[in-house]
Amino acid sequence: MRRIRYDYDTFAGDLHALADSIDGKFDAIVAIARGGMTMAHMLGEYWDIRNVFVVNSIGYEDTKKLETTKVFNVPDLVPFERILIVDDIADSGETLDAVVKRLSARYPDKKFETATLFYKPHKSIVKPDHWLKSIDDEWIDFFWSDDLKRIAEKSR
Amino acid sequence: MRRIRYDYDTFAGDLHALADSIDGKFDAIVAIARGGMTMAHMLGEYWDIRNVFVVNSIGYEDTKKLETTKVFNVPDLVPFERILIVDDIADSGETLDAVVKRLSARYPDKKFETATLFYKPHKSIVKPDHWLKSIDDEWIDFFWSDDLKRIAEKSR
Repeated sequence: MRRIRYDYDTFAGDLHALADSIDGKFDAIVAIARGGMTMAHMLGEYWDIRNVFVVNSIGYEDTKKLETTKVFNVPDLVPFERILIVDDIADSGETLDAVVKRLSARYPDKKFETATLFYKPHKSIVKPDHWLKSIDDEWIDFFWSDDLKRIAEKSR
Repeated sequence: MRRIRYDYDTFAGDLHALADSIDGKFDAIVAIARGGMTMAHMLGEYWDIRNVFVVNSIGYEDTKKLETTKVFNVPDLVPFERILIVDDIADSGETLDAVVKRLSARYPDKKFETATLFYKPHKSIVKPDHWLKSIDDEWIDFFWSDDLKRIAEKSR
């Protein structure tokens, strides 16, 4: 599988492009941990949205794939109407699908939209409402996964 | 007040230095939103900790300071023992203090430690267990607050 190194500067430019393709009039942002956390942090600052939350999910127990993705730590969204769910990538799309279903079931009257930086149209079971880059089956090495390890290696 | 621009590269180096001053043997990381979210994301990846959560707080209602900081969306920490609470800065320290008190009250048997990048010893009502840079009363312009706005201005 081809690997793509995705550094901070590329990310910041891309996140700005993604943000500007969306109107930004959300009452709240929900990041899917861990992948959507840095995005949600920066989008919250950019759009001046203080209501930034995180939801957790588990699709694997050790290396064994679970039959259904577990979604937990669902935030209190009662006060909000229009909510953006963000993740780094819709790869298999199973996490995004599970989170949207769980949040929609718990809050049937809210308006949810989804946004990812990357989307694999040939693989993902869901299509995000907003996405920036469509890819085949490349593996993205995000800076948030690699940079501290890289710095650690250099400083040895 | 002197302002310090804090860019991503400086942050990544600092976060690595902070991480390496801590043993990293935590069962879970709790970020204080929004300031601690990018840190928690990257520390989770660096230490290979999947249990990364977020807690929310409000110290102000519009521009009016509340008497007590409200802490909400407390994650489920039952399965964990040693937990690191992270935020960008201990400024007045009121948020960090409120979060530690709330989590300790709800989970009296857990071991909590706190970590921030910046700490204002002359001002903060609490001292984090781990912190990297002590400052007087400078204002830090974090990249997560500024970079998307800066890119937007350039692209106009």
